[in-house]
Amino acid sequence: MRTIETVEDLKSWVRDMKESGQTIGLVPTMGFLHEGHLSLVEKAKHENDKVVMSIFVNPAQFGPNEDFDRYPRDLERDQQLAASAGTDIIFAPSVEEMYPRETQIAISAGAQADVLCGAKRPGHFDGVLKVVTKLFHLTEADRAYFGQKDAQQLAIIESLVDDYNFTLTIRRGETVREADGLAKSSRNVYLSETERKEAPHLNKALQLGKQLVLEGNNPLPAMTDYLNEHVSGKIDYIELHDYPTLTQELHDEAILALAVQFEKARLIDNVIINLKGI
Amino acid sequence: MRTIETVEDLKSWVRDMKESGQTIGLVPTMGFLHEGHLSLVEKAKHENDKVVMSIFVNPAQFGPNEDFDRYPRDLERDQQLAASAGTDIIFAPSVEEMYPRETQIAISAGAQADVLCGAKRPGHFDGVLKVVTKLFHLTEADRAYFGQKDAQQLAIIESLVDDYNFTLTIRRGETVREADGLAKSSRNVYLSETERKEAPHLNKALQLGKQLVLEGNNPLPAMTDYLNEHVSGKIDYIELHDYPTLTQELHDEAILALAVQFEKARLIDNVIINLKGI
Repeated sequence: MRTIETVEDLKSWVRDMKESGQTIGLVPTMGFLHEGHLSLVEKAKHENDKVVMSIFVNPAQFGPNEDFDRYPRDLERDQQLAASAGTDIIFAPSVEEMYPRETQIAISAGAQADVLCGAKRPGHFDGVLKVVTKLFHLTEADRAYFGQKDAQQLAIIESLVDDYNFTLTIRRGETVREADGLAKSSRNVYLSETERKEAPHLNKALQLGKQLVLEGNNPLPAMTDYLNEHVSGKIDYIELHDYPTLTQELHDEAILALAVQFEKARLIDNVIINLKGI
Repeated sequence: MRTIETVEDLKSWVRDMKESGQTIGLVPTMGFLHEGHLSLVEKAKHENDKVVMSIFVNPAQFGPNEDFDRYPRDLERDQQLAASAGTDIIFAPSVEEMYPRETQIAISAGAQADVLCGAKRPGHFDGVLKVVTKLFHLTEADRAYFGQKDAQQLAIIESLVDDYNFTLTIRRGETVREADGLAKSSRNVYLSETERKEAPHLNKALQLGKQLVLEGNNPLPAMTDYLNEHVSGKIDYIELHDYPTLTQELHDEAILALAVQFEKARLIDNVIINLKGI
């Protein structure tokens, strides 16, 4: 496995791969890898000749009062994990390499960003769109892999690719969980010991809510009560939307999603509910 | 030469070309071809194995009171001209084929669109960015060709490509003119006989202004007087900006540009002025 830090070196490698007819799978990450990321690498490895993992803590997707500076970083550890999962190239550019000057042209998410995390983090998904557009072009990937845990991000990126005829295919990866049900996240390291014990209740609340939705009931009051009883963190949102449109009118699939702000970590989780035939 | 009308057929042709290692040059047009377009085809032919010309009157770049409906169209004539210039593929999709549903994600020009035509045609360049992003992806072009006559469009598209690391290169084509100096334009057919006789004064005004700029003078008053004296159309703007940033502070190159509204045609023209060493 090779680590590439510059756009020029990446483009040169991509050129070589394209000329020899190799397909490329891209796993965009902000590093501090966990099994969720590695499961995406394994999926990518299975479907492509080469796997590029980008590791880039993207300032454009953090708000001014968010955790950009203290977002956990450990490139050496990431390199070992990525290599062991079969990554061929880590692309780990500096901020200056990715954003050598202010961009003139803006890419903005639409109504899909007005709910869930987007409503709480203005500009967040515009920053995501900015970096993934660059990464899609730079890697000339055939497929790009995103986890279902960031379901809103996934839906918005699918819209980007669909709206603008990007040549690559977006592939979804299932949320990977700890044995107790807590969704794997780089931000879990910020949880205190007590919070870590409470955190599996996020998934339990979603399972409770899913059952209520399937029974035709509004899941939000019961989930709110459940979380208030079981976690010390503050509920940021609990929302139910159509998926992937993220509109109010439910069709074949719904997303039930929540965010809880613990002292140093804001955790999100969701469940996709198949509504066909109920 | 083959005319392709669907995205699916285009992608299939592009796939074949890419697999056989052929390079692709793209000449995006709105049809009703003139020598300006054909000179771009010739340039593209010279630099690529295959040339795709898109012919698509893009509704996204027309304002509600602009000339989308009456924009001149003549596909049969265009096919003959394009073929004679060496075009391999005309891509002439329907509006439904290009925009099967409302886009979720927006691409917007920045400050570069706040001057010249952008100031007079709000949303115009966002519509241009929308269609070119789609065309760049659909054709997987190695190079795309745009005329210097639409200098603001060219500058904004260069920003798009640069900001988002598109894989293709933008190539500029010189403005092609009639013998009397009038810049070739599909909209020239709307000029009355009298207006057609006046229209070469747009270029003459630019040449006058260029001389004044090179002498260190403000060109705008003299150009305004000149045009008011020689054309019946109404001056929409005369502006001098840095090129290609389109900001006020002049550096190596400046653009002196104007627009004149005749009865049925709004004509634009410009000259790029090399300021180095003056």
